[in-house]
Amino acid sequence: MANEVVLLDCLASMFGMRVRVALAEKGIEYEYREEDLVIKGDLLLKMNPVHKKIPVLIHNGKPVCESLIIVHYIDEVWNDKAPLLPSDPYQRAQARFWADYVDKKVYDAGRRIWSRKGEEQETAKKDFIECLKVLEGVLGDEPYFGGKTFGFLDIALVTFSTWFYTYETCANFSVEVECPKLIEWVKRCMEKESVSKSLPDPHKVFDFLVIWSKRRR
Amino acid sequence: MANEVVLLDCLASMFGMRVRVALAEKGIEYEYREEDLVIKGDLLLKMNPVHKKIPVLIHNGKPVCESLIIVHYIDEVWNDKAPLLPSDPYQRAQARFWADYVDKKVYDAGRRIWSRKGEEQETAKKDFIECLKVLEGVLGDEPYFGGKTFGFLDIALVTFSTWFYTYETCANFSVEVECPKLIEWVKRCMEKESVSKSLPDPHKVFDFLVIWSKRRR
Repeated sequence: MANEVVLLDCLASMFGMRVRVALAEKGIEYEYREEDLVIKGDLLLKMNPVHKKIPVLIHNGKPVCESLIIVHYIDEVWNDKAPLLPSDPYQRAQARFWADYVDKKVYDAGRRIWSRKGEEQETAKKDFIECLKVLEGVLGDEPYFGGKTFGFLDIALVTFSTWFYTYETCANFSVEVECPKLIEWVKRCMEKESVSKSLPDPHKVFDFLVIWSKRRR
Repeated sequence: MANEVVLLDCLASMFGMRVRVALAEKGIEYEYREEDLVIKGDLLLKMNPVHKKIPVLIHNGKPVCESLIIVHYIDEVWNDKAPLLPSDPYQRAQARFWADYVDKKVYDAGRRIWSRKGEEQETAKKDFIECLKVLEGVLGDEPYFGGKTFGFLDIALVTFSTWFYTYETCANFSVEVECPKLIEWVKRCMEKESVSKSLPDPHKVFDFLVIWSKRRR
């Protein structure tokens, strides 16, 4: 079977980045298409009519949506190399649980940091730091969330590091001061080419947010 | 390995019911513990300190949380009988996508039906019916969402049918009138003992909501 892989994505999306990292881990070539998040393209609307959101992985013409579901899919289709989910069912459940926690808690708190002001922003910052500290505890003394090897939960979380500069600038704090071990882990992940080559410069993420916030008004 | 399985649950929870159906499909015996959702018990707080929510599956002393993650886990641990996820990666991704849709859209609209009044409730009802119609389209002419066999997405959605009476009573409509094919599918699922024996009487769900709403104030 031919493997025609197209990714509908947006450079600054931490969800899109997950798919880029997963594809890079597996060594899969693909066509990257930058989507406009304000004026949505026909292909995006056709391929994800339900949520109308990136990322969408189009594999041989068929769409897969929602970043964690896409990473699962990539891991299951290209299962001959760089396994992302642990093999043990309990460890798999734990990886899924914490990735879901990142989606529900970390993303939400981060979004509130840049979209709110004053007291609400302070609460968001507190929530965000608390979430990262919880995750720092989950990491423990292991090199990766996947234990000895980089895996599913590492992918789910590391992409948020490209937004740390934005969060820090908006709410005046330092993730490194609050969670030094987590930043060590980010640096460890960034030593992997699959990560460093898939993630944008944090300043570009900030610039994206400034422009996008003005356009969507 | 001994299989000591305990389920922390609440009779009226559509999320808890998913786990009960999955365990019944696999023929697994377990200890059911009804949890108080207002005054939370020590075991629940210990086993799910992050979300403090049921359901929690405790397998040989180790907790697994979040209903869809638990159903995944059950399917992966007891993989010798009644497979719940499809074997094809693309079909698996689709099942996960729609189960996630149920969690995000159907649950949210349903919750707004009983928790809001007036115009907000009307909007919720409209959203809820729209979601069910989308899912009716996904079902198509197949007997189950899993195709010829009952599976993951069937489990994810069928438990909401126990809440239909509550939604209908609160917002004065009939799911059967709006989505007759979906109701046919519910009836088909209810012919399975794993479903009918795991789901409570819809009137009990309604009574639960009335009492719980008063207590949590």
